[in-house]
Amino acid sequence: MTFSKQEKKYMKKALALAGKGLGKVSPNPMVGAIVVKNDKIVGRGYHKSYGKPHAEVNALADAGDNAKGATIYVSLEPCNHYGKTPPCTEQIIKAGITKVVYAIDDPNPIMNECTGRQALEQAGIEVVSGLLENEAKRINEKFLKYIQTKRPYITLKMASTINGKIADRVGHSKWISNSKSREKVQFLRYSHDAIMVGIGTVLMDNPSLTVRYQDKKKDITKIIMDKNVDIPINAKLFESKDKVIIVSNRKLMNSQKVKELQKNGTDFIFSDVSAGIFDIDFVLEQFADRRIASVLVEGGSKLANSFLTAGIIDKMFLFLAPKIIADNKAIPVFYSDAEQLIENTTQLNLISVEHLGDDLLVEYNLR
Amino acid sequence: MTFSKQEKKYMKKALALAGKGLGKVSPNPMVGAIVVKNDKIVGRGYHKSYGKPHAEVNALADAGDNAKGATIYVSLEPCNHYGKTPPCTEQIIKAGITKVVYAIDDPNPIMNECTGRQALEQAGIEVVSGLLENEAKRINEKFLKYIQTKRPYITLKMASTINGKIADRVGHSKWISNSKSREKVQFLRYSHDAIMVGIGTVLMDNPSLTVRYQDKKKDITKIIMDKNVDIPINAKLFESKDKVIIVSNRKLMNSQKVKELQKNGTDFIFSDVSAGIFDIDFVLEQFADRRIASVLVEGGSKLANSFLTAGIIDKMFLFLAPKIIADNKAIPVFYSDAEQLIENTTQLNLISVEHLGDDLLVEYNLR
Repeated sequence: MTFSKQEKKYMKKALALAGKGLGKVSPNPMVGAIVVKNDKIVGRGYHKSYGKPHAEVNALADAGDNAKGATIYVSLEPCNHYGKTPPCTEQIIKAGITKVVYAIDDPNPIMNECTGRQALEQAGIEVVSGLLENEAKRINEKFLKYIQTKRPYITLKMASTINGKIADRVGHSKWISNSKSREKVQFLRYSHDAIMVGIGTVLMDNPSLTVRYQDKKKDITKIIMDKNVDIPINAKLFESKDKVIIVSNRKLMNSQKVKELQKNGTDFIFSDVSAGIFDIDFVLEQFADRRIASVLVEGGSKLANSFLTAGIIDKMFLFLAPKIIADNKAIPVFYSDAEQLIENTTQLNLISVEHLGDDLLVEYNLR
Repeated sequence: MTFSKQEKKYMKKALALAGKGLGKVSPNPMVGAIVVKNDKIVGRGYHKSYGKPHAEVNALADAGDNAKGATIYVSLEPCNHYGKTPPCTEQIIKAGITKVVYAIDDPNPIMNECTGRQALEQAGIEVVSGLLENEAKRINEKFLKYIQTKRPYITLKMASTINGKIADRVGHSKWISNSKSREKVQFLRYSHDAIMVGIGTVLMDNPSLTVRYQDKKKDITKIIMDKNVDIPINAKLFESKDKVIIVSNRKLMNSQKVKELQKNGTDFIFSDVSAGIFDIDFVLEQFADRRIASVLVEGGSKLANSFLTAGIIDKMFLFLAPKIIADNKAIPVFYSDAEQLIENTTQLNLISVEHLGDDLLVEYNLR
């Protein structure tokens, strides 16, 4: 299928609109829609927040009577099932749209007897797909993984010197990366459903783990990997109203400290621990059950390495500060005692590089 | 001084011509010149190789009679002294040029009674300078340091995983970086007067250290930092006709092995060694005396760290392969036993980032 410049322009606009839902629609996808009649845009819409009307419905409402005989460009195949809102296909048919152009198929397995595409075609509407497919996949990569695997998308974020040190030998890391990088971290938090740190980071830094991205608020879930429930009752991260999940050893389920924390509203996921390691697949499933479609893992280096070793990281954002700490005892970005020879290096795919002042933000996919 | 678009265009062309001298003119600067008459380019020239005519002379010859009444754009102030060739100022005056526009002042301290600029102005020629100054400085940064400090420009080149490992625990490093990066290394070698490695690298890898950049040949000087003259007589690096310099302890000056190597044409620099460290300022001076204006230091990690600690590195090129070796015993890009706290990190300035397939080449200046 080849598409005209004009068609690409419309889909680009739909994708830009979709992006406005960032941080608000999860675990739904970000979707944008543009209604075009006689080569003029007559309606625009996007999915604004979870549970609210879909992009198509908003765009059709914006177009009003102009939707009759028009083409709609949508970044995702229109849905054909009843969820929080009625099927978009019905609305599109009712509005008198004659052609639907979408980027990627709806991966949602909760399907009606037929797909959105089939429903539209049965109503005599021309349907074309695959326009700016890669771009559409990229903006919804978290949703796509979540819906297809029932596991959250895992992003690892680390900040190191260019020689792979995240702190000096006494554990000090302020400030490895610059203020632009730190603002970008807020953006990354904003674009995920949950943040995760290891208990070591809580004990060392006592972070508040809130999201302060520009003027935007965001309720984020804070996840602490804390086998032995070592978390202090008065840790800073409890101070905000955000939800806190502590992942700990099933054996501690009935401990006094757990009960105390539960009374304060803290959620627990209890996992078996064998050889010091959580049943990570079970834990991820538990996240998904709580509608957490994406997790930003923020370290420290042992947690980062255990996730890396478990092969469950989808993406890594590495902030590289223009600094060198040669000290052999400085804390490495990944730490492992296990032998790893050159033929067994962990391979990544380079996606993008961004300049943040003198810092670099490098984005890699892991599979 | 503000310059017109047209003037910038001419100077850009002069700089592009200058770049053609890369790898051939050192320790002279790369210089390009453009002769312009009635808004038309009537002559082009550049300094082609060490000891050969300067850019201005070549451009004037190319312009012929058209030089009369023309403007010449030169990337460096025309020289006014007798070196391997007569002063360019004389040629410019003789050719009837009426205006000279150049980028940066000639930093050469070997001056006549007056500067090139003064000589031209005394002859009634209009002289303007500072056009694309930064670009002109950048292409000749090696020359500028060499001529101003009488010490070579030191570039460090390292290739590591994104977590700062250059080899696994058994020392294997093939292939951390990809083929595009390896070709870029050839380019870096091509653009320096000498390559340097530590004896550890010679003993571990037995490299040939030749330059194979595309179809271009290059006589390069190979420098081995080898305190105890541990280098094997049959090391591969001796196989080419390139000059070899071994830097070693003054105490070994009269040793049998030194004499044997000298007989084969190997040059030695003997330095005092105190606390295991060369008198690096003396060594650099010796390089400069041998007309080595730039050295590419290629590792290993101990040599890299000692140069870093000595504060003598001007630029670092870091190849970052999209790989992780978490193994704590893998070999780090910089190794030091000394405590270095966060407030004493080595700071670098980010200059550029280049994509070489999935590898990144990051360029930093150190001061």
